[in-house]
Amino acid sequence: MAKKIILDCDPGHDDAIAMLLAHGNPDIDLLAVTTVVGNQTLEKVTRNALSVARIAGITGVPFAAGCPRPLVRAVETAPDIHGETGLDGPVLPEPTLELDRRHAVDLIIDTVMSHEPGEITIVPTAGLTNIALAARKEPRIVERVREVVLMGGGYHEGNWSAVAEFNIIIDPEAAHIVFNESWPVTMVGLDLTHQALATPEVAGRIAAVGTGPAKFVGELLDFFGATYKEAQGFAHPPVHDPCAVAYVIDPSVMTVRKAPVDIELRGTLTLGMTVTDFRAPAPDDCHTQVAVELDRERFWDLVVDALERIGDVEA
Amino acid sequence: MAKKIILDCDPGHDDAIAMLLAHGNPDIDLLAVTTVVGNQTLEKVTRNALSVARIAGITGVPFAAGCPRPLVRAVETAPDIHGETGLDGPVLPEPTLELDRRHAVDLIIDTVMSHEPGEITIVPTAGLTNIALAARKEPRIVERVREVVLMGGGYHEGNWSAVAEFNIIIDPEAAHIVFNESWPVTMVGLDLTHQALATPEVAGRIAAVGTGPAKFVGELLDFFGATYKEAQGFAHPPVHDPCAVAYVIDPSVMTVRKAPVDIELRGTLTLGMTVTDFRAPAPDDCHTQVAVELDRERFWDLVVDALERIGDVEA
Amino acid sequence: MAKKIILDCDPGHDDAIAMLLAHGNPDIDLLAVTTVVGNQTLEKVTRNALSVARIAGITGVPFAAGCPRPLVRAVETAPDIHGETGLDGPVLPEPTLELDRRHAVDLIIDTVMSHEPGEITIVPTAGLTNIALAARKEPRIVERVREVVLMGGGYHEGNWSAVAEFNIIIDPEAAHIVFNESWPVTMVGLDLTHQALATPEVAGRIAAVGTGPAKFVGELLDFFGATYKEAQGFAHPPVHDPCAVAYVIDPSVMTVRKAPVDIELRGTLTLGMTVTDFRAPAPDDCHTQVAVELDRERFWDLVVDALERIGDVEA
Amino acid sequence: MAKKIILDCDPGHDDAIAMLLAHGNPDIDLLAVTTVVGNQTLEKVTRNALSVARIAGITGVPFAAGCPRPLVRAVETAPDIHGETGLDGPVLPEPTLELDRRHAVDLIIDTVMSHEPGEITIVPTAGLTNIALAARKEPRIVERVREVVLMGGGYHEGNWSAVAEFNIIIDPEAAHIVFNESWPVTMVGLDLTHQALATPEVAGRIAAVGTGPAKFVGELLDFFGATYKEAQGFAHPPVHDPCAVAYVIDPSVMTVRKAPVDIELRGTLTLGMTVTDFRAPAPDDCHTQVAVELDRERFWDLVVDALERIGDVEA
Repeated sequence: MAKKIILDCDPGHDDAIAMLLAHGNPDIDLLAVTTVVGNQTLEKVTRNALSVARIAGITGVPFAAGCPRPLVRAVETAPDIHGETGLDGPVLPEPTLELDRRHAVDLIIDTVMSHEPGEITIVPTAGLTNIALAARKEPRIVERVREVVLMGGGYHEGNWSAVAEFNIIIDPEAAHIVFNESWPVTMVGLDLTHQALATPEVAGRIAAVGTGPAKFVGELLDFFGATYKEAQGFAHPPVHDPCAVAYVIDPSVMTVRKAPVDIELRGTLTLGMTVTDFRAPAPDDCHTQVAVELDRERFWDLVVDALERIGDVEA
Repeated sequence: MAKKIILDCDPGHDDAIAMLLAHGNPDIDLLAVTTVVGNQTLEKVTRNALSVARIAGITGVPFAAGCPRPLVRAVETAPDIHGETGLDGPVLPEPTLELDRRHAVDLIIDTVMSHEPGEITIVPTAGLTNIALAARKEPRIVERVREVVLMGGGYHEGNWSAVAEFNIIIDPEAAHIVFNESWPVTMVGLDLTHQALATPEVAGRIAAVGTGPAKFVGELLDFFGATYKEAQGFAHPPVHDPCAVAYVIDPSVMTVRKAPVDIELRGTLTLGMTVTDFRAPAPDDCHTQVAVELDRERFWDLVVDALERIGDVEA
Repeated sequence: MAKKIILDCDPGHDDAIAMLLAHGNPDIDLLAVTTVVGNQTLEKVTRNALSVARIAGITGVPFAAGCPRPLVRAVETAPDIHGETGLDGPVLPEPTLELDRRHAVDLIIDTVMSHEPGEITIVPTAGLTNIALAARKEPRIVERVREVVLMGGGYHEGNWSAVAEFNIIIDPEAAHIVFNESWPVTMVGLDLTHQALATPEVAGRIAAVGTGPAKFVGELLDFFGATYKEAQGFAHPPVHDPCAVAYVIDPSVMTVRKAPVDIELRGTLTLGMTVTDFRAPAPDDCHTQVAVELDRERFWDLVVDALERIGDVEA
Repeated sequence: MAKKIILDCDPGHDDAIAMLLAHGNPDIDLLAVTTVVGNQTLEKVTRNALSVARIAGITGVPFAAGCPRPLVRAVETAPDIHGETGLDGPVLPEPTLELDRRHAVDLIIDTVMSHEPGEITIVPTAGLTNIALAARKEPRIVERVREVVLMGGGYHEGNWSAVAEFNIIIDPEAAHIVFNESWPVTMVGLDLTHQALATPEVAGRIAAVGTGPAKFVGELLDFFGATYKEAQGFAHPPVHDPCAVAYVIDPSVMTVRKAPVDIELRGTLTLGMTVTDFRAPAPDDCHTQVAVELDRERFWDLVVDALERIGDVEA
């Protein structure tokens, strides 16, 4: 049976690809898309999400806007990676979907509470502000959710500081809430996603699909590749967010390791670090695990397959 | 015209007296009562609020339960001051009011957004979790609220640590949110409330009112006086929360001083301190002020007057 | 019997006056003067100390230079208060004294260890780097010292931040060491020294002494008064450092209160705060006390008396 | 020409082996041995150092005791690894060497200042209290020292917390001082030393040397192996400290990588972490490097060779 997910995102180039993967893959039932400030302002990423919905032909799925700023810290966005719109590169169509009138936090709560315990997987690919607020506003979602599979953090790698990753450091208090609740959390962090590089060969496979959505992905990778080279020195851009979706589709696409993970809230050099303790076998009640090694081949197969299934979309 | 307030509280002995003062004073229009974990668990303080409503004869006012735990930290309650029920001492009647079905955060948001800008004063006499969540979930309330008049903190005094007060230290991140939003904040802290001591003379005045609610207040003060003596060495108990209500009724009942206030989130010895900068005249855009000196006589006049106006209540 | 002291200082206008007071008062036996980075660089404050020695006619007392930088933090000086030389205003004579060849830390240790237990009082009127290093290098000085009477900190007042004072915040780790050792510590902080204002009347009394050293003090106060008005808005400058010396001369010149004091090392807003716990009577083993109220009249009497005793000095 | 080193240590089983390696290897000229609190109290590790000197036949080298406690934090020792004496296992002979009368900090300063610039390498295999104090007391040593090659820290591995190592976390402020001075620092951390496991094959090679000192090393490994298995789950004990000496003997015994390293002083979960920034090529003025991969074979060759050269020692 397809896995029911809520995708909480801030598109964002790789978020857009994550949406396409979630929509195109038959083992995912995309129940809701929620947005949150992150790669760009809430207004921009929300508009981007709706434009991507049109490109991908996503209909009948509620989209809701969430928090315009992190819990405690000031807003920090990533224009050097994602450009001024948050999705620079392709020309984006006007959205056709209307936003759900609910706040993202309420859409998340309603969706979880109206399904059976263990049915819903939350897939955050952005800062964790919405998820944290949902858990605080309605604590009963915690035991009702099947698991949280998030893109963020890194046990050894950092990007926004030596040891912290963007999605976590922009709202470390929210991350602290999410990692310290009792639900199962799978952290698909930089250690994993830096293996998901869009090499020319990958770009070639995507181009070969030949559809509108595939061309859109190609344009995303072109822009994203240039900024990642410029800003962080990557030869090929790491395509973070679809990795979390891929894990939900098929956990065997990566190896994971159980280990306690907690968020550093006070460090001067380490604020927002996802501190992972590998010193001993994880205790039996450990509810967190981290992604370690990606089966690159199968990961890209999933992305290409989703694009092929989506095919050409009537605008 | 009476001032429209939302009372966000965790009854709690002094919260109960604050409710009575807000209900009995003709210059206050009590629009909503919301509860939050603090002096005791959410469940207990919510039940206490409803029992106090019955004692005071409060009807037609929505009561809603809010957050059962602080944003980031673990729950910390104050049984050594307020007892196991949170309102030990008097025998409490079964509540007759029904709780509003909304979450406190939504009741706060709905109330503020359905009134004109500048109409609603929020009066928190507990940890600031509900208020912080409301500001994050619906940022537009910030400019719509008239002001926030809160009991909490202290510029020189502490009680839960050398320099921090209970309502702030139990959820310092929430306090950081509330003090850093642009709305006017009046901090009625320990520097002020330690002047509001329920001396025997005060207790005598209250007893002389001779009604059921006055007798209830007397029993509260008896219990609260004993625990304050035992736990913090006070000869007479400081009756914190009604001071914030009194300021809304009549700002001239205390002197206040404009000064920047911010919340320490990282200190080892100073976590949750309301750091107040008196070094220079407050800048023109300073939106925070602190209560300095209480007109004790007029304060207790207000409390006694409210009890007299409430009179005896048909249970 | 005169009290034997080591004066550890960073002259500094008020340090210079403290030197004069210590030298001129018959109840003080000035055994050593040590210098440390603070108001200005080590090189500058050391030269200033030697120039003041010449002005005051101090001979036969070893002067030694200490640490050029704080333990952990970067150097921070106070040119806006003390000028580029650290003692701007008067024309300073060339020093005639030679520096002791020992490091200040070793001079402190040697002086303490070569006297009987309980004989030596250390009087720091600067950052606590030298004293902290001495305590770490030779832990036996701690129980051998009679007491530490320091100018620094403040239980309610701050100057370099809302709640921290310059001498402490420039080397909070050193202050943490000094306050946490078991020797008696008297903190003469801003709460006290902001009562020691050099009003025109005070300046007049000093001018009336009519000697070279008194004229020098007058010039110090002129410069210091102007910068304090400009930088911190004081009508008359607070003359901090002699207050600590005055306490050693005659403890009854100020009231003090026993209370635990500790140093905040991690706070964002409170770094270097001398956190003082007044919530309960100090425990029996409390080894710290804070100065509360100054007898202004007697304090200035001591300063004037010292200047009169010094008289005119043969350059 | 042999490299002149000062070994600053806290024997400790692996410190003892480091002493033997430094003494036995012809490319090392051991100029001084200094001790500091760490694996055990200063008194114990100092006695251990002298006993090891006798076992190894070290004469004509000054040994000096240093700091009995860390700069700011309370003393923390490691009896679960090194036992109650700090060198449990072998029977230790009475020392025959006399301690130098100088404090370790002064011996370090005197040794560095009495040699030419660039001659002396400092090799700390303990907490960095002595080295930090020496750099603060005599700042000129910093540019005079050739390099600091220390055992401590770890860029990805921790032992005393998830991300911090014992030698650093017991005195993080001292480590902060040492890593932030401008001298070249090579960090031989857990990432490297966890490759230096004393497997049975290694133990066999050492036993085959057949001398008294080799037998002593065997007994050290027996004890150390048992406690490391018990306390940290290692199948074979990591022999940390000699790795730093081995790097001085022959840098090609390990690969190193230039990268900025700094010490976290405030983190709740990350206190004492040696935060290493691998995100970009190290800047030209980067003065820190970290050891990455050990040539195990050649490392153990060095250890065995040193033991063979030492031979049997006349007690």
